[in-house]
Amino acid sequence: MFKKVLIANRGEIALRVIRACRELGVKTVAVHSTADAESLHVQFADEAVCVGPPPSKDSYLNIRALMAAADVTGCDAVHPGYGFLSENPGFAEIVEKLGLKFIGPRSEMLRLMGNKVAARNFAEQAGLPLLPGARGVLKNGEEAEGIARDIGYPIILKAAAGGGGRGMKIVREGGDVRRTFEQASTEALAAFGDGSMYLERYVEEPRHIELQIAADEHGNIVHLGERECSVQRRHQKIVEESPSPAVTPELRREMGEVALKAMNSIGYNNVGTIEFLMDEKGRYYFMEMNTRIQVEHPVTEQVYGLDLVRLQIRLAAGEKMPLVQEKIVPKFHAIECRVNAEDPLTFAPSPGNITGYHQPGGYGVRVDTMAFEHYRVQPYYDSLVAKLICWGDSRDVALSRARRALDEYVVEGIKTNIPFLRRVLADRRFAAGKYDTRLVEQILTEGKAAAAEPVPST
Amino acid sequence: MFKKVLIANRGEIALRVIRACRELGVKTVAVHSTADAESLHVQFADEAVCVGPPPSKDSYLNIRALMAAADVTGCDAVHPGYGFLSENPGFAEIVEKLGLKFIGPRSEMLRLMGNKVAARNFAEQAGLPLLPGARGVLKNGEEAEGIARDIGYPIILKAAAGGGGRGMKIVREGGDVRRTFEQASTEALAAFGDGSMYLERYVEEPRHIELQIAADEHGNIVHLGERECSVQRRHQKIVEESPSPAVTPELRREMGEVALKAMNSIGYNNVGTIEFLMDEKGRYYFMEMNTRIQVEHPVTEQVYGLDLVRLQIRLAAGEKMPLVQEKIVPKFHAIECRVNAEDPLTFAPSPGNITGYHQPGGYGVRVDTMAFEHYRVQPYYDSLVAKLICWGDSRDVALSRARRALDEYVVEGIKTNIPFLRRVLADRRFAAGKYDTRLVEQILTEGKAAAAEPVPST
Repeated sequence: MFKKVLIANRGEIALRVIRACRELGVKTVAVHSTADAESLHVQFADEAVCVGPPPSKDSYLNIRALMAAADVTGCDAVHPGYGFLSENPGFAEIVEKLGLKFIGPRSEMLRLMGNKVAARNFAEQAGLPLLPGARGVLKNGEEAEGIARDIGYPIILKAAAGGGGRGMKIVREGGDVRRTFEQASTEALAAFGDGSMYLERYVEEPRHIELQIAADEHGNIVHLGERECSVQRRHQKIVEESPSPAVTPELRREMGEVALKAMNSIGYNNVGTIEFLMDEKGRYYFMEMNTRIQVEHPVTEQVYGLDLVRLQIRLAAGEKMPLVQEKIVPKFHAIECRVNAEDPLTFAPSPGNITGYHQPGGYGVRVDTMAFEHYRVQPYYDSLVAKLICWGDSRDVALSRARRALDEYVVEGIKTNIPFLRRVLADRRFAAGKYDTRLVEQILTEGKAAAAEPVPST
Repeated sequence: MFKKVLIANRGEIALRVIRACRELGVKTVAVHSTADAESLHVQFADEAVCVGPPPSKDSYLNIRALMAAADVTGCDAVHPGYGFLSENPGFAEIVEKLGLKFIGPRSEMLRLMGNKVAARNFAEQAGLPLLPGARGVLKNGEEAEGIARDIGYPIILKAAAGGGGRGMKIVREGGDVRRTFEQASTEALAAFGDGSMYLERYVEEPRHIELQIAADEHGNIVHLGERECSVQRRHQKIVEESPSPAVTPELRREMGEVALKAMNSIGYNNVGTIEFLMDEKGRYYFMEMNTRIQVEHPVTEQVYGLDLVRLQIRLAAGEKMPLVQEKIVPKFHAIECRVNAEDPLTFAPSPGNITGYHQPGGYGVRVDTMAFEHYRVQPYYDSLVAKLICWGDSRDVALSRARRALDEYVVEGIKTNIPFLRRVLADRRFAAGKYDTRLVEQILTEGKAAAAEPVPST
C-alpha cells in the first residue's frame, strides 16, 4: 500500500479521497490555492501545500507546482480526483516518469479516451455498439454533408477534443451541414486548440446511461452496473440514479459483457466509466469513456454497498480484484442530487458566504460536501457545493427519502438549486422513471408556461 | 397508514421518527418542553405543541399534557421513542383507550416485561434459557441466603421494578446475603416505590448480547440478528456493534429460533429487543426484554440495510410483515459510538452551548443527532448528543472507518466523551473482538496505572 498520497484536487472529492486514504492507513497531502487555504480538505489532510493563487491554471492545473509539492512531502502516489488534471495524459505521464503512481489507468488509456475520434475507432474495433457516423476526423464540410446524407438526419457534429457536452452541434433535416461544420470547427479550434470534427447520427430522445467498471493490474475486471444520468441541463448532470429504470437485469448483463470484453482487449486498469446513449427502443451506443472516478460514483457505492475510492486506491497499489462479478448484484436503489451554488431560476452562479447551513441526515441519507456554516463558496471553481445521496430498498422509497432530505436541507447566504432539485423529484415523468435528457428543458418550459398563464379570478 | 403521529419524545429520536413519518407521507406533531423550544425536532415537525417546563415530569412525562396535545392536533397515533414513557404500560393503555394507536406492542406486553419477576417467569415458561435463581420475588434475606447456597456464588440481587442496571447488587462467596438483601430492598423501595427483589447466579465475565425482533399483528415474526452491547460503563451502553464477534451464524439461528418461539407464545407485536447475558463459554441467558425501539437500533439498520422505524410504524398500522426470515442475512458490519456531553475523564455531565460543530461524513458513516453549531445541550435530560454509526464489509473496515470518523468529529464549547470513545476503539481487546462488560473498567484502570507510573528520565 502507498505511504503518502498527494491529492491534486479540492472540494468534496479531495475530502472524499482523504477519508478513504485515512481508513487505509495512508498519509495524505492536500494541495490548495490561496483562495482555499481555510478549506476542510486542507484541515483534514496530514499535510497541506499551497500551490498558487486562483484561477486554476495558476494552482490546481500547475503541474510543476503539484509535482514540487509531491516531491518535498515525499509522496509515492497522486490521486487526481475528477476534473482538473484527472484526464490529462501529459500529467499522468509526468507522474509516472517521476516514479510516482498515478491513481487511475495508465497514461496511454487517458490519451486514447481523451481523443473522441481515437476512442470511437477503438470502440468500433472492440465491438462496442456505435451510432452510424464518420469513420474518423472529417476532412471538410463537403465530406460531412455526404456522410450526413448517407446515414440520415438528424446528425450531430462533435469536436474531437471536446467532451462533457462542449463543442457539439445538431443539424436536422434541411439544415446546412457545411456551414455548421465550418462554425463548429472554428469554435473548437478556439476552445480546445484543435478544430478536428466528426459526426454521427443524433438520437432525439436519448437516455444517458453509463457503466462503472473496475480492473486490477492482473487482468481481472468487473463492472458495477449502470448509472442513469439523463437529468442534465446543457450536458451538465444534475440528478443521477442507479439502477436505471430503463435497464433490466438482462440488459445490464449484456452491456456488462460487451463492455468488459472491450476493456479487456486494451488491458484497461483501475476504475472507469463507459458512457452510453440509449434510444427509446433500449438500443445503446458508445459515447465516450471517462478514465477517472466520476462525480456521481456514490450512487454506485450505495447500490452495491462498496467503497469505490477505497477500491480504486487498492487496485492502483497493485492489489488483486477483491470482487467477483457473479456476486455483484444491486442491493438498493440510490438517487444523487447535485446541490450547486446557483440561482434556481436562471442557473447563474451564486458564490459567497454560507451564513446558515443545515444538512439532512438519518437512515439512507449521505451528504458529500466541503460546505459548513461560514464556508465561502469561491467564484473561481465549479458551483458544486454538495452531493446528496439517498437510498432505499426500492426506487419509490429512495425517491421519498430524497424528497424528505431536500426538504430538510437549509443553505443560507447564497442561492442554491435546491428548489429546482425539488421540482425534478416532484416531476411526474421522473417519479415514473420515464424520462430522457430532455427532462430539464421540459420542466423549465412547463414552468414558464404555467407562470405565464392568467391567474383565474376568484 | 396513519394520518398524523404525535411524537412523545425529544432529541435525536424525535428527529428520527419525524424523518420516517415524512417518508411515509404521515404528518407529525412534535411536543417539547419550554427548554427545547428551539430544537430541531420542533422545527422539522409539521406542528409542535409545548407540553410544559423542565424537568421531564412536568412535560415529557406529563401524560395529561401529551394526550391534550394529541387531541387538539387530531393525531391518530403516538410514537413514544425510547426512555420517557416508552415502556410505561399505563401510558400505552391510556393511548389505546383514547382510540389512538400506540406505536409499540400492546400495553399488556409492556406490563409483562416491565416487571422483572413476571418477565423471568414468562421466560421460564416460554423456554428461554435462564440463569439459576429464585422462582419469584424473595420473601426475605433468609430465603435469599438459602437460594444463594443452593445455586452457588457469586449471585446478584435485582430489584423487580429496576432495569437498565439500576437496583442491582452482587454478593460473592463469603459475602453477607441477608444484609445486602435488606439494603437493596430498602433502596429499591425508595427508588422505584417497590422493594421486591429476586436473585440469580452472577456471571463474572459476561457479554451483553441482544436480539432484535419485529412482529406484525397477523402472527408473523422475524428476528434481525443480534447487537453486542458489552461496552458499558455502570450499565450504560457506550459502543455497540453487530454482528457480535461472539455469535456464529449457527448460534444466531439457534438464539433466533428460541426467541421467536417464546415471542410467538404470547403473540408479541411490533418491535422489541430481548437482552441476553452470555458467559465465556458462549452459553446465553435471558436478562430482560425491551418493548420499544432501542437507542442502538441503527446498528441493525446498517447491517441488514433496512429502516427499522419505518418498519415499526408500518407494523403498528396493521401492515403485513414485509420480511422473510430466510432472506434476512447480515450484509455489513456496523459499530455505533454514543457521543455524550460529558467529561471524558470523570464522565460528569457537561451541558452548555456548542460553539463549534463539525460532524464526520462520507461513505459508511451516519450521524443521528439533534446537535448543530449554537445548539444548547440542556442540563435536564440525558447527555446523549449524537450517535455515530459506521459500517463496512468487515469488522476491520468498520472499525477503521469509525476511528477515522471519530478523528474528524469536532464539538467545541462543551466537553464530550469523544476522547474516551477513541480509547475504546484503539483498545487491543476491542480491536480483537475479545471483550466483555468489564472492558470500560479495564481501560480506565490501565489508564490510571499508566498515568501513575514515573516518567522515565531521559
